[in-house]
Amino acid sequence: MLDLFNYNWQVRNDWFAWCDQLSIEDLLQKRAGGLGSILHTLFHVIDGEQIWLYQLMKNPVIEKDKESIKSLEEVIAFSEMTRNTIQPFLADWSDEMNEQVLVKKKRSGDIVYFPYKKVLQHVISHEIHHIGQLSIWSREMGLAPVNSDLIIRTF
Amino acid sequence: MLDLFNYNWQVRNDWFAWCDQLSIEDLLQKRAGGLGSILHTLFHVIDGEQIWLYQLMKNPVIEKDKESIKSLEEVIAFSEMTRNTIQPFLADWSDEMNEQVLVKKKRSGDIVYFPYKKVLQHVISHEIHHIGQLSIWSREMGLAPVNSDLIIRTF
Repeated sequence: MLDLFNYNWQVRNDWFAWCDQLSIEDLLQKRAGGLGSILHTLFHVIDGEQIWLYQLMKNPVIEKDKESIKSLEEVIAFSEMTRNTIQPFLADWSDEMNEQVLVKKKRSGDIVYFPYKKVLQHVISHEIHHIGQLSIWSREMGLAPVNSDLIIRTF
Repeated sequence: MLDLFNYNWQVRNDWFAWCDQLSIEDLLQKRAGGLGSILHTLFHVIDGEQIWLYQLMKNPVIEKDKESIKSLEEVIAFSEMTRNTIQPFLADWSDEMNEQVLVKKKRSGDIVYFPYKKVLQHVISHEIHHIGQLSIWSREMGLAPVNSDLIIRTF
């Protein structure tokens, strides 16, 4: 499933480049839905990927509050840092790993089980979903969004 | 990859149920981005799946103009009809089919090649992207969107 991560990372980079035309006020402007702003939605996508993948990798999860995020550069740096950690792990993925299970204890004390394959599917679909949200905000601002059509991309 | 189609179909059905609370005027209300309205965006997702999958299945593609779509019931019926055709084809999918290639001639005369696996990835990501768009419109209307988080679903 690494190819779909590569697809998402390519689209994400295109959105970073797209963001360059906006001021920090536009990027943090409060909007309905998603994580409430363009910048926080992008951060949330990267953070979600980090939280899930770092657990599979048995890396300590980085705790970062989205309200502390105030610049596009920070978000890009966070994306590059986490991707550089995650990419080699995914590159070494084997079919047997699909069947492994992440075990978590909820606050209620209940135990929940997440098959690794499902975690990857979740992270991939989570980013695509939020990127769709950015495309609406883009049109509402009168701007053409990034074309994220997978079929026209080489990744 | 059938599981991700099952995921999309489940989320799609939840959106159909969500749409029940809206009038046809709300469903056809002009909005920025996507296919310009909730109903036409849902139709577009189903139609895109049909167009790509019917080609892989070597079925004649159904030509349907989105402007002719005037009711939720029509869209649901189109979804059920095409899904019933596509589902058995995907259920019989074998790894060798990933490597098969759909060959198409563009209007310019150029030949383009689409590996079957990439077509499936495109159709899956296309629906997730547009569903993300619906979630923004939903929040803008003051309504809670369908929760499409893959990790919490059984499909």
